[in-house]
Amino acid sequence: MKFALAQLNFHVGHFEGNLRKMKEAIDEAAGAAADLIIFPELAVPAYPPRDFLEFGDFIERCDQSIAELARYSGEKGLAVIVGSPERNPVPEGKDLYNSAWFLEGGEVREVVRKALLPTYDVFDEYRYFEPSREFRIIRFKGKRIALTICEDLWNIGNENPLYTINPMEELMKQEPEIMINIAASPFAHGHTAERKNVLRDNVKAYGIPLIYVNHSGAQTELLFDGGSMLINDAAKIVDELPYFEECIRYHQWDDCFEAANPMESDREQLWDKNAVVYKGLIEGIRNYFFKLGFREAILGLSGGIDSALTLVLAVEALGASNVHAILMPSMFSSEGSVSDARCLAGNVCCEHRVIPITDVYHAYLDVLKPHFEDRPFDVTEENLQARIRANYLMALSNKFGYILLNTSNKSELAVGYGTLYGDMAGGLSVIGDLYKTEVYDMARWINREKEIIPRSIIEKVPSAELRPGQSDQDTLPPYDLLDQVLHAYIEREKGPEEIVAMGFERELVARVLSMVNRNEYKRYQFAPVLRVSPKAFGMGRRMPIVAKYLS
Amino acid sequence: MKFALAQLNFHVGHFEGNLRKMKEAIDEAAGAAADLIIFPELAVPAYPPRDFLEFGDFIERCDQSIAELARYSGEKGLAVIVGSPERNPVPEGKDLYNSAWFLEGGEVREVVRKALLPTYDVFDEYRYFEPSREFRIIRFKGKRIALTICEDLWNIGNENPLYTINPMEELMKQEPEIMINIAASPFAHGHTAERKNVLRDNVKAYGIPLIYVNHSGAQTELLFDGGSMLINDAAKIVDELPYFEECIRYHQWDDCFEAANPMESDREQLWDKNAVVYKGLIEGIRNYFFKLGFREAILGLSGGIDSALTLVLAVEALGASNVHAILMPSMFSSEGSVSDARCLAGNVCCEHRVIPITDVYHAYLDVLKPHFEDRPFDVTEENLQARIRANYLMALSNKFGYILLNTSNKSELAVGYGTLYGDMAGGLSVIGDLYKTEVYDMARWINREKEIIPRSIIEKVPSAELRPGQSDQDTLPPYDLLDQVLHAYIEREKGPEEIVAMGFERELVARVLSMVNRNEYKRYQFAPVLRVSPKAFGMGRRMPIVAKYLS
Repeated sequence: MKFALAQLNFHVGHFEGNLRKMKEAIDEAAGAAADLIIFPELAVPAYPPRDFLEFGDFIERCDQSIAELARYSGEKGLAVIVGSPERNPVPEGKDLYNSAWFLEGGEVREVVRKALLPTYDVFDEYRYFEPSREFRIIRFKGKRIALTICEDLWNIGNENPLYTINPMEELMKQEPEIMINIAASPFAHGHTAERKNVLRDNVKAYGIPLIYVNHSGAQTELLFDGGSMLINDAAKIVDELPYFEECIRYHQWDDCFEAANPMESDREQLWDKNAVVYKGLIEGIRNYFFKLGFREAILGLSGGIDSALTLVLAVEALGASNVHAILMPSMFSSEGSVSDARCLAGNVCCEHRVIPITDVYHAYLDVLKPHFEDRPFDVTEENLQARIRANYLMALSNKFGYILLNTSNKSELAVGYGTLYGDMAGGLSVIGDLYKTEVYDMARWINREKEIIPRSIIEKVPSAELRPGQSDQDTLPPYDLLDQVLHAYIEREKGPEEIVAMGFERELVARVLSMVNRNEYKRYQFAPVLRVSPKAFGMGRRMPIVAKYLS
Repeated sequence: MKFALAQLNFHVGHFEGNLRKMKEAIDEAAGAAADLIIFPELAVPAYPPRDFLEFGDFIERCDQSIAELARYSGEKGLAVIVGSPERNPVPEGKDLYNSAWFLEGGEVREVVRKALLPTYDVFDEYRYFEPSREFRIIRFKGKRIALTICEDLWNIGNENPLYTINPMEELMKQEPEIMINIAASPFAHGHTAERKNVLRDNVKAYGIPLIYVNHSGAQTELLFDGGSMLINDAAKIVDELPYFEECIRYHQWDDCFEAANPMESDREQLWDKNAVVYKGLIEGIRNYFFKLGFREAILGLSGGIDSALTLVLAVEALGASNVHAILMPSMFSSEGSVSDARCLAGNVCCEHRVIPITDVYHAYLDVLKPHFEDRPFDVTEENLQARIRANYLMALSNKFGYILLNTSNKSELAVGYGTLYGDMAGGLSVIGDLYKTEVYDMARWINREKEIIPRSIIEKVPSAELRPGQSDQDTLPPYDLLDQVLHAYIEREKGPEEIVAMGFERELVARVLSMVNRNEYKRYQFAPVLRVSPKAFGMGRRMPIVAKYLS
């Protein structure tokens, strides 16, 4: 028996496109004499369809795709496993199941339902789906297959299990010979290793091999790294598909068993964090633009590290000729900032232009000063500069059909060190899930072979340059300290006492946590953030704006 | 036995404040010789605490409040029912229960857990809580009480039950004499009537009376109308507490039984939609400002109906002296708009000032024109005007500590007829859940006794006045038609075929639905919207930005 693992990049709600792509994959697999092609979880509508799942018309379109896939694969003489929603046939419970459809001989042979529905962080599955409480294996060409969906394998080897049941334990009673798991498992750095461990633990626990098929690509803020794999019955990774690439890979039944096909060592990809996050961000930009039908980006280039890194990523993702870098100096901009920005733009061969904000700034002040009642220069005038820049960028974006890339990092988003409708503007936040220290780290990694980001940008003291002689550290703790406290609070969800116990000053901790909590209102209006960490701002972190806790 | 129904307004995460308020209520109830005081669902942290529930420190603070309430009420000699999270004592499942704590004699006597966890629209309860599967009544002073939490009563008399179990059916086996339900049930117009029906249906089904205690006030976008009630065993509403007000009301055991205390008719409040939505929006504004520690608002007054209604609401909520109306005419503004705006400001006794945008607009064009490559006037220049106005408003907001109120309506938010970082700016959207036709309707209702909003504002053709002779209907279908299609798609979640079958032109339907779906990116960055409908933009409607469905 020959399997095709189809790690593909789908497009939410694009039924024609997704169906076309699956048919092409079926053609290819049929040509390769595969018996079974495996597409990922909810491949038919793409993942996550979110509240489109509440529309009857949307589900009908899914059903039509399934019917067409059954017909088409039947004609081509191979079976299909593919994820798509299924209407709950009984009135009790949620209207849908998150199901794996097994298509053979031109018809739907079996439907397997997901039992463990992730409802945490970015996941909302219990919002839409009823959990399955029935477990049965499927049979194909005399083989017994335990087919599960993503999270179904994740309640294992854990001291604090999130669910009260374990689907594989139920399925093992029916003596399957192999596990197949279809997934929609988003990328986060560190998650790839965790995923491998969990999947290997399943193989170790049940003693049968596992075929795992995940999505590649990106959907708005969620990146899908693929990493589909075959783990043999000795818990060795026989094959792992490339990260962030579409790929169809074939394996024989025998590949699943060490006895039949002994492997000397695991064949898996080992990447460092910067390399894989970099590739993920590139995919994130590309998917956001191309799936929305855009090609060109604009961004403000300040001479600082954040916009420098964002530019390098944008140029890599879209091509230098599709990226427009705008330098918008004010009277507070240093000479170095402008020359550093120019130098960087030159290094990446990107068109840039300089549009100073001074005249417009003075035009505003002429009009507004009489209304300021002689109050001194403060954050108002600083924000005004940032907002003039956003207006320039949005005007060019509107005139030429560019998408504005936001350049804020996670540290400043966390503490609210940014201007709403100013430097917080943009259609997509590229590096909003990288702390400032991670931004530096990736910049140095980019420069590992030659200097692309000018060293002076990496080495200078960070400043917003919104008033004379300003430095970020006038307002914020040093970034290495700040980022550690933020990480403890945001990623690890530690409380103030726990963070103090980690060795940080009580006053610093209180100040940082208060800044984070008081600035929910800014993040509420922020662009989608390409998610590369286990806890990004956006859909995976849901906080009230009006609250009085640690604030 | 005497009950106190404590319909109070809590503040998310404000443990000291919430505890103080509950102690004051206990004092009052003890003074009134009540035996039992009933606070709403999750009153201790206030509702919804959202992801704060994931912080161990937050739960500890809840536990401390419960311990203190037990001690205090024990001293005062009365029992307490109050909602607060409870740690799940077993490792399997989610870490928390959403529980009702029964405190008596200085200690925790019973803890009842919520079984039905709403996870739809604005609700995310399964994100945090494990559903209860154990049901037992509580006993107090010889009486048998079926204590449930909000949604637990909502799986009744429904052809399409959302849940597979029904807590009251389990509890009835233990022969309770009365139901007590503590709730955190947000307001939506129409929901009040639905709630009464559902609660009455419970009384009819089980033949025992019901005491229902809900929150009042507002938490960010969610409004809580209270409407706590006592329904006697004949399914009559013996008492309903006022909408959107804090109130402690006392009842005797006998009030629950028609035989002991016959009532001639239901004592319930009958309000028309405009009156109750108006009161809700006022509460929403007040809670947003006061809980965040702000007193003063600013808004742009265009002479159009949306900003007119928003101003009236803001003045009612905050007082005329705390609202700052700014008129920002351009060369495209009509004489009428400015005079109408002035007239309205005068009618509500609100300070207003005029700050024209023309000079700044020309300053921008002087700088940007050379970069526009001779492209004609288009949406770029229109957006620029809207963004200059937002900058003025944000500058004054920053300088004086005002919150900018957004004036967008639901129709324009739906179709993307607004400028991101322009008229879409603001800290709170006041009327973003009212369709344009509902805005007119409320404006006429406000004028029911005397003309507060000048008739010319209500009667003129709606225009954004961003180019000469512009009218909304140049770009959009007439609002009465548009709003019907939007309502079918957004509130009723109908698909295109269903909406066509309702009698609308296929082309119109396709065009409107496409506008809605293509503009998710704008709404993603929009302010929180005070929710008055069953389906508001924001946390209750979760759509992907990058999608290709009906777009």
